[in-house]
Amino acid sequence: MIYLDNAATTFPKPESVYVAMDKTNRELCVNAGRGSYRIAREASELIADTKKLLRDLVHADIDSAVVFSPSITISLNQIIKGLSYTKNAVVYVSPYEHNAVARTVHLVSQKIGFKVKQLPINDGFEIDIDKIKYEFSKEKPSVVICTHVSNVTGYVLPVSEIFHEAKQFNAICILDSAQSLGLVPIDVRSMAVDIIAFAGHKTLYGPFGIGGFLNISGISLGEVITGGTGSDSLNLEMPDHPEGRYEAASANIVAISGLNAALKEVNTEENFLKEKELTDYFIGRVSKLKNIKTFLPENIENHVGIVSFVVNGMASEDIGTILDEDFDIAVRTGYHCAPFIHDYIGDKKNSGTVRVGIGIFNSKADIDILISSLEDIAG
Amino acid sequence: MIYLDNAATTFPKPESVYVAMDKTNRELCVNAGRGSYRIAREASELIADTKKLLRDLVHADIDSAVVFSPSITISLNQIIKGLSYTKNAVVYVSPYEHNAVARTVHLVSQKIGFKVKQLPINDGFEIDIDKIKYEFSKEKPSVVICTHVSNVTGYVLPVSEIFHEAKQFNAICILDSAQSLGLVPIDVRSMAVDIIAFAGHKTLYGPFGIGGFLNISGISLGEVITGGTGSDSLNLEMPDHPEGRYEAASANIVAISGLNAALKEVNTEENFLKEKELTDYFIGRVSKLKNIKTFLPENIENHVGIVSFVVNGMASEDIGTILDEDFDIAVRTGYHCAPFIHDYIGDKKNSGTVRVGIGIFNSKADIDILISSLEDIAG
Repeated sequence: MIYLDNAATTFPKPESVYVAMDKTNRELCVNAGRGSYRIAREASELIADTKKLLRDLVHADIDSAVVFSPSITISLNQIIKGLSYTKNAVVYVSPYEHNAVARTVHLVSQKIGFKVKQLPINDGFEIDIDKIKYEFSKEKPSVVICTHVSNVTGYVLPVSEIFHEAKQFNAICILDSAQSLGLVPIDVRSMAVDIIAFAGHKTLYGPFGIGGFLNISGISLGEVITGGTGSDSLNLEMPDHPEGRYEAASANIVAISGLNAALKEVNTEENFLKEKELTDYFIGRVSKLKNIKTFLPENIENHVGIVSFVVNGMASEDIGTILDEDFDIAVRTGYHCAPFIHDYIGDKKNSGTVRVGIGIFNSKADIDILISSLEDIAG
Repeated sequence: MIYLDNAATTFPKPESVYVAMDKTNRELCVNAGRGSYRIAREASELIADTKKLLRDLVHADIDSAVVFSPSITISLNQIIKGLSYTKNAVVYVSPYEHNAVARTVHLVSQKIGFKVKQLPINDGFEIDIDKIKYEFSKEKPSVVICTHVSNVTGYVLPVSEIFHEAKQFNAICILDSAQSLGLVPIDVRSMAVDIIAFAGHKTLYGPFGIGGFLNISGISLGEVITGGTGSDSLNLEMPDHPEGRYEAASANIVAISGLNAALKEVNTEENFLKEKELTDYFIGRVSKLKNIKTFLPENIENHVGIVSFVVNGMASEDIGTILDEDFDIAVRTGYHCAPFIHDYIGDKKNSGTVRVGIGIFNSKADIDILISSLEDIAG
């Protein structure tokens, strides 16, 4: 099988991730931070070390809380539902948001009554900073939530510039790094970001079952998930701790050990260069195929890893089925849990796109086979 | 190390759980149910098979939705926050509830304004059914939430009888089976239960990262966690599907494969007999030690697996430290995330209990070493 669904989850993972998880399962799979015995403390130290690796990866200092959760979806729920809003707030999201953001903002907006607006993009499917300045001046942003890399098109959004503009109005800035952390550099010293949500199992090459957020500016969030914290047990309120307050339930030490191993392996610059080279190679070849239309940003420098396309006159699902059954190639088809962007790229007559998600374990040979398969299908 | 913290999480797990997880990590670690390719479908089939094993375990029929989540804490949030309440509702909980229930009910009650009452217990720390009948007739129950086995004392609550009484008033009945599923038989054909929440990593001997609930009566719940579901992506509402609506985010197929293996191994009757024998052996011996006070139900038949005690004049945390450092025995000390029961058992002067959590991989030799250590400490 040629696996090109790395935008859904990267696969395979580095060998060290598998080894760490199996070892933890066998030797350290206890309830961390709650026990008063040796291996429970070792588990706690592993958690602390993993949090340090995450802070280091984005150049955050020791004061930045790192909250673990079982998935970035849950973290985005904790963030978006945990923020305080007035009825008159204006929440901006990019048109590239995933449903973990889009549906959650929608639900909260229905309850509170605030307005949700989309950041403007231009005809090249790129964020239009000038229009954003205009929109912000017209309707001041209270909160801006933005994905770093589109899970549909691979577009790398200019999040530093967006957040810079948002901060002119003291907006709270939330970054969804599901498709970027470990692939595209993030440096909080030069980015006006308040909270970064992250996924373990995507561009970090860690396992399922672990995500979280870095609370860079120490914003206070209401509790969204309540439960046992192994601390202050007699108190019916969640403890007032910048991490523990948001970490109800037993820590998944097995997944955390996998993430720890992944973080020790990940090399953002190398991974970017590798994926960029493969992506550009694919784009160069697929662009020559007739009947195929890709959805790329105007400036191809702002792009990495993911390419969506449609084949004229064919449902994308059917392309996926043929690639699977006839060529043993795994891609994803449809709308990719991103509700807004399809209004812009115009793929609805194909029932969504065929999405090629490239990872660091792919090769040019994989791309060659995909291209020759597409020549067969679309040619 | 002698591990006696099985009430926090069972450790070790059966070998088949480790093998399944490593194999899935290496061969099947993709985004199930969303891809249109072979191994994504295999992952989906593994999920369906695991749900079937869970239904079979409680004798539920095919119509009972099985919702997976990353932990029973999240599931209890989904259930308790997902139910509809009036301001005049009365929600009963047992005094044995864990903070996953206690804090969550507390938070929701503060928002809605309904009353939270505790089910009455007698001087023998057992549920008093006659008093419950009286309480229910005085203040009709809207919802009854009850743990099956106390994570502090090992008491097996008479949940069938409690729910039978609650159903006389058409109350919604929620069972927390974190400490019972796979250890104490649950048969929905003879229990008036609406929803059973379960944890993978405790009495089922599965991994961290997977829990969920069985919606036996098909009760409608509002969505608590929103996000991508791999379906109906253009819709900003969560899909109206009895399982998918509550399963936002990528399924943790690695943890599910571990749970699948655990469910294929688990033998409730055997595990109960084994744990009961070890527990009774420990109780028989610890009862003879002077200066130690246990907190057991009056009728020891209603008890399994967990024994809490205090040593006169000593903080429980210190006992835990000595057991760890001097004898390499892992127990848990403190309040065990259960806020109410300590008002009854009177362990606050010791800052909580020493809890011995027995598992199927323990032996009489483990108990003997613990007893001789306690003779040293308390003698």
